[in-house]
Amino acid sequence: MQAPFTTLAEFRDLLTQMPAPDADATAGATDRNSQLTKPPGALGRLEDLAVWYAGWRADPRPRVAAPQVVIFAGNHGVCAQGVSAFPAEVTAQMVANFEHGGAAINQLSKAAGARMDVHALSLDTPTADFTQAPAMTEAEVVSALQTGWEAVDPQADLLVTGEMGIGNTTVAAALAAALFGGTGADWAGRGTGVDDAGLARKIAAVDAGLALHDIADPLSALRCLGGREIAAMVGAMAAARVLRIPVILDGFICSAAAGVLRRLHPDALDHMVAGHLSVEGAHQRLLDALGKVPLLSLGLRLGEGSGAALAISILKAAVDCHSGMATFSEAGVSDT
Amino acid sequence: MQAPFTTLAEFRDLLTQMPAPDADATAGATDRNSQLTKPPGALGRLEDLAVWYAGWRADPRPRVAAPQVVIFAGNHGVCAQGVSAFPAEVTAQMVANFEHGGAAINQLSKAAGARMDVHALSLDTPTADFTQAPAMTEAEVVSALQTGWEAVDPQADLLVTGEMGIGNTTVAAALAAALFGGTGADWAGRGTGVDDAGLARKIAAVDAGLALHDIADPLSALRCLGGREIAAMVGAMAAARVLRIPVILDGFICSAAAGVLRRLHPDALDHMVAGHLSVEGAHQRLLDALGKVPLLSLGLRLGEGSGAALAISILKAAVDCHSGMATFSEAGVSDT
Repeated sequence: MQAPFTTLAEFRDLLTQMPAPDADATAGATDRNSQLTKPPGALGRLEDLAVWYAGWRADPRPRVAAPQVVIFAGNHGVCAQGVSAFPAEVTAQMVANFEHGGAAINQLSKAAGARMDVHALSLDTPTADFTQAPAMTEAEVVSALQTGWEAVDPQADLLVTGEMGIGNTTVAAALAAALFGGTGADWAGRGTGVDDAGLARKIAAVDAGLALHDIADPLSALRCLGGREIAAMVGAMAAARVLRIPVILDGFICSAAAGVLRRLHPDALDHMVAGHLSVEGAHQRLLDALGKVPLLSLGLRLGEGSGAALAISILKAAVDCHSGMATFSEAGVSDT
Repeated sequence: MQAPFTTLAEFRDLLTQMPAPDADATAGATDRNSQLTKPPGALGRLEDLAVWYAGWRADPRPRVAAPQVVIFAGNHGVCAQGVSAFPAEVTAQMVANFEHGGAAINQLSKAAGARMDVHALSLDTPTADFTQAPAMTEAEVVSALQTGWEAVDPQADLLVTGEMGIGNTTVAAALAAALFGGTGADWAGRGTGVDDAGLARKIAAVDAGLALHDIADPLSALRCLGGREIAAMVGAMAAARVLRIPVILDGFICSAAAGVLRRLHPDALDHMVAGHLSVEGAHQRLLDALGKVPLLSLGLRLGEGSGAALAISILKAAVDCHSGMATFSEAGVSDT
């Protein structure tokens, strides 16, 4: 689906006209849920998930038939500050690993029955080091948003956005601080596994970025701090909203991308659920800022969309129960 | 597999000769895990699950290919004390619903790719009301243990035991109290949704049962409190241990069954993981007593094996990642 914007201002305008869930489908699903052969509420969050999904898909008895996992990869100038335990060339190596089916997200997508696409964004041209200059020009951030927008399959009925980018927990920490306040110490974490000195460098880099740039506006913060893969996730999430495709959020970096939309419009994340709580530093704090309660908490901190892909099976099961179970009258079960 | 016991004493003896996980497979899986294309530990509990599963299956690179969900149903004399919001005939109605594919567990088993079997245990002959007499004779409890043992498919590579039985949260609360101490007030919960007066009746029934019977021995407590479906779960869990089939525990009632084995041998649950935390009353307390941390916490309180069946997809995904991912050297990814 071609992106209907060519400037940041046009993207910003688009976000003011986002669809809501279908009220009739929500009501129909709520009614159906009350008739299924189980004590009221006994399926807990699965019931809420099914009704939420039905509303967004405008179908009181939906199925999850075509989930899509899209992974965006980018490189980051801030790696010059020594913020990662891995060298920047690992980004391209892992993209190749995604393409050859060897990464965790390949297995998790397959297990979830999801189509998986990978988009590498100008890996040979890292964003500028945000401690020195804006990470991206307007043209660059718009291009990344467009890549994300156009990556969403309009036929998908569920979306997971994942990412790969050595250094991007530092970028996400800076972005989270810009969006929701606080300093580097509040938001930086261990990422792929930096030591204490590495963590100190991450904190210093975040604080330098916050001091240098105009970060009051969320889209300006995104442009100045980066990165391309994060902007692409923002674009994909916005496209999903327009297409009424529910989104499962992954971990810290994905949640920072969602934060951009949340800061622009309080209800911009209504089509999203949080797939999991990552152990990366401040993910809980970030989810709190987004107003989201994670479905899973299994100690993951991998990115790639892995935690969200794992949660696809939970959402699918919720919808399967909702749409496949018998009602009390169909089954001849006493409901009192 | 024919049950190799005909008395409680013989069943007790069998439990003294339980196999351990395969040390070579555990070591091989641990080694493989360290070489996969991800930062060390980045898949969190998924890594622990995969290594644990590999050990029990004696295969350093296993697959979960044949999960089995077995549901046992029983009726309970203690329903005469007014402990459930639903009439006892719902047990048989729900068994019919299971057989016709209309229940939540049908959808969840299908979503998990699991075979599902249902065993109704003498529904027309409820156990005795444990506030008045022992719930079962020795012959009855042995028969239920045998039913459970023989229900396990020796070709299965993962087992979920579920249950259905109006009144059985009261039975499970009494059993938990017998096994781990405390009173009715500590262990009774709302079950399918009783009101305050119903909860008071549950507490009184549990306390009456604890006062009446010899509950110092776990198998005596099982016989005196019931019920048939709980004894069948105990038998199935023990058979799974002998067959080295890992087990995912469901909610409160299933966990009470596991508690019988735990009290008999501290390591009897080593082949089990807790699938989820139920919102039924004291499930957290019971999991603490079992030494288990649940994989999911989604507000379920349905029984039927539903929470455990939902967790099958998590375990499968963990094993898929472990066995399907590329190593650093296979993928040409830098590991430092």
